[in-house]
Amino acid sequence: METKEEKKAQGDKREKILQGALEAFAKKGFYNTKVSEIADEAGVADGTIYLYFKNKDDLLISLFEDRMEWIIDRIEAELEQVEGGTIEKVRRYMELHFQLAVENPALAEFITVELRQSAKFIKEYDNPKFGDYLGILKRLIEEGQQDGTFREDLDSRLVSRAVFGALDEVLLQLTLSAEKPSDVSLEATQVSALLIDGLRARE
Amino acid sequence: METKEEKKAQGDKREKILQGALEAFAKKGFYNTKVSEIADEAGVADGTIYLYFKNKDDLLISLFEDRMEWIIDRIEAELEQVEGGTIEKVRRYMELHFQLAVENPALAEFITVELRQSAKFIKEYDNPKFGDYLGILKRLIEEGQQDGTFREDLDSRLVSRAVFGALDEVLLQLTLSAEKPSDVSLEATQVSALLIDGLRARE
Repeated sequence: METKEEKKAQGDKREKILQGALEAFAKKGFYNTKVSEIADEAGVADGTIYLYFKNKDDLLISLFEDRMEWIIDRIEAELEQVEGGTIEKVRRYMELHFQLAVENPALAEFITVELRQSAKFIKEYDNPKFGDYLGILKRLIEEGQQDGTFREDLDSRLVSRAVFGALDEVLLQLTLSAEKPSDVSLEATQVSALLIDGLRARE
Repeated sequence: METKEEKKAQGDKREKILQGALEAFAKKGFYNTKVSEIADEAGVADGTIYLYFKNKDDLLISLFEDRMEWIIDRIEAELEQVEGGTIEKVRRYMELHFQLAVENPALAEFITVELRQSAKFIKEYDNPKFGDYLGILKRLIEEGQQDGTFREDLDSRLVSRAVFGALDEVLLQLTLSAEKPSDVSLEATQVSALLIDGLRARE
């Protein structure tokens, strides 16, 4: 049986590998990164990586799932703090999405750019963690439809996807811009004005 | 000097290679496709490809530019036929975007999936042909702002990007769906309801 300390040490090593992969992918791209370069970034032996991950694709998917879990936990916690109704919550969701380009540019680049580089991931695009992230948006739209804030003629599944696409494209732009963005309030204001007004119920 | 016939034969061969690449990429993905497999699809010798294209990345970009040119010409021609104002034109643009999943699924898959697989392309994301396609949307939004249909507080550059993102994400979903879609009217109606209502000027 593993002791508590052994489990913790394993968790730390796994995390070091994930963080090393994130940095290596941001530098050279998923396809051009060798497993040995990830090991270098992580400060572990090449073989160690295979104790935790089957291959580079598996690493990519684990990294995505792990980081999405972090993003989801954070967004749920932030949404609980929002004073105001559904519209304020949707606005906050959008703001936090763009904020990633400021707070964690390597992660923003990974999600918008590198992730699509793995054909394997694209085919597993219905990844449960991605579904959870989209699900928050879908739930907010449905909440607004129930409380009369948002129009009822829109399909929450389809429309949450469209809204996500708009956010993802603008985050991609922020991520690819020559200067790393320090403020995303213009993007947040404009995109939420467009999308929230599109969702809003009217007389 | 080349005769007219020689020029035409060259053009045909180039087109055969581009179409072969489109089919090969759709089957195996950009990264997993060998140049020799493109040659097989196109029915030309491997070496012939290098007479027309520097490498696989160059082929990807040429394919994108060539097909975008076709899409742009078509959309411009269709927009001229639209009876009605700016809103009808924006609606038609969206409908034609989704229609690609029905009419040319290999091209829809290439644009939404394969294209992002090339790191080189992502860095050249400000590709002029992509800019032209986005530019049509931006122009329509500005037209609507001038004639009073659309609100003036939105930045046409930023907002056309967000609108494109929404369309691209829904097209990606259509393209990845298990059954090839035969009708995109639900997607077109819902997404244009959301986005056009978001753009609309109000009292």
